[in-house]
Amino acid sequence: MSELDVAGLQRRLAEFAASREWQPYHTPKNLAAALSVEAAELLEIFQWLTPEQADRVMEDPDAAHRVADEVADVLAYLLQFCEVLGVDPLAALSAKIDRNELRFPVGRPPGRSARATEAGDRHSSE
Amino acid sequence: MSELDVAGLQRRLAEFAASREWQPYHTPKNLAAALSVEAAELLEIFQWLTPEQADRVMEDPDAAHRVADEVADVLAYLLQFCEVLGVDPLAALSAKIDRNELRFPVGRPPGRSARATEAGDRHSSE
Amino acid sequence: MSELDVAGLQRRLAEFAASREWQPYHTPKNLAAALSVEAAELLEIFQWLTPEQADRVMEDPDAAHRVADEVADVLAYLLQFCEVLGVDPLAALSAKIDRNELRFPVGRPPGRSARATEAGDRHSSE
Amino acid sequence: MSELDVAGLQRRLAEFAASREWQPYHTPKNLAAALSVEAAELLEIFQWLTPEQADRVMEDPDAAHRVADEVADVLAYLLQFCEVLGVDPLAALSAKIDRNELRFPVGRPPGRSARATEAGDRHSSE
Repeated sequence: MSELDVAGLQRRLAEFAASREWQPYHTPKNLAAALSVEAAELLEIFQWLTPEQADRVMEDPDAAHRVADEVADVLAYLLQFCEVLGVDPLAALSAKIDRNELRFPVGRPPGRSARATEAGDRHSSE
Repeated sequence: MSELDVAGLQRRLAEFAASREWQPYHTPKNLAAALSVEAAELLEIFQWLTPEQADRVMEDPDAAHRVADEVADVLAYLLQFCEVLGVDPLAALSAKIDRNELRFPVGRPPGRSARATEAGDRHSSE
Repeated sequence: MSELDVAGLQRRLAEFAASREWQPYHTPKNLAAALSVEAAELLEIFQWLTPEQADRVMEDPDAAHRVADEVADVLAYLLQFCEVLGVDPLAALSAKIDRNELRFPVGRPPGRSARATEAGDRHSSE
Repeated sequence: MSELDVAGLQRRLAEFAASREWQPYHTPKNLAAALSVEAAELLEIFQWLTPEQADRVMEDPDAAHRVADEVADVLAYLLQFCEVLGVDPLAALSAKIDRNELRFPVGRPPGRSARATEAGDRHSSE
């Protein structure tokens, strides 16, 4: 399934944009904005749901379709952003997990404090 | 490199969260919020840059590292969100490209109007 | 308290930016991006909290300060955005409430369906 | 015009929500998410525009209406968020400007470096 890996999808997205002459719009800044907008549209599905309702969102076929559709949009803009700037998203994530394994050793007290630390550290110079 | 495909990264992320007892925090709603926050942090890098400065962002090693780091965070939360809800992100994107090829035929007048239509259609019931 | 109304704050923000020669950065597009980034930073405070923890966020002095600080940032960019484009935010909101009173008559079945309708309508052409 | 000040608008918003029994949805966490989603919808208007097109957005009546409508939504959720948590948004902004006048003295070299410093400082402990 050459189309169902990241490189294949990036190729399809690039051809799609090129054949419609959309590349002039696909600047790094615009794609970062579009990615952020699509992520917010995904969040919008959940904004008024209780945690319990949110956990069951895929039981509603309409909501399930909307979730998959917004996931696709987020991934589409993320991959196009990476293509334009020459970032390998899978390598970036793998390297980040490596770093996080050092920053958050197993055995640290779990729960809120660890998550709060993660959030705080994310803003540090790392 | 089994770790450098999407399924391998999802497995590493799941193990990372499980060994730190973070799963209770990784609800669909929380992960959608975190994804949106990380996408905004990526946008933050570009917010005051001109389009020309943004195009050259990877020439600055610090900025390049920050871009890769935020890309990793966005992808991490996207993959964890998909894992928790049972969404296949690559299949969702492939299906979306299929649909978009029908919705945006090649040869439609290019440029702003096409992009504007895309933005409008994205909000329709589809 | 001339400084504690919206017009007075807009004046202070404009003087602040002008005296530091920041106006070239304060384009409508950049300010819209910055507003979105600050709103995400406010959300970040809540992203891992349960609804119950979120309700009590102001009991923690550090979190309370952070909330007020992010509220200030959101309002600052909203007011500067409005100033640059000549939008009166209070008049815009008043007009919107007027419209919503017609769109969401009292007595419609309350709860999720009404909120879902609101979300859907918000994307219609209105 | 008692309705055209912040307190008057907060009162109208509270009555609007109460008479439709929407308060259970208006938790701090949900309102922070909704604020972030609306800010992204405002950004969406600008995402594919060049800076020059963005500067002229109010010349198009449809776009101008959409901008005002999204400004209203952002302000509506910001004011409701503040009401629920007991934050005074105008006082918070005034205090923030006071602090920023100390943090960013006039005369510091202007331009990108100052803005970059602002962005960096915003993430520090302040």
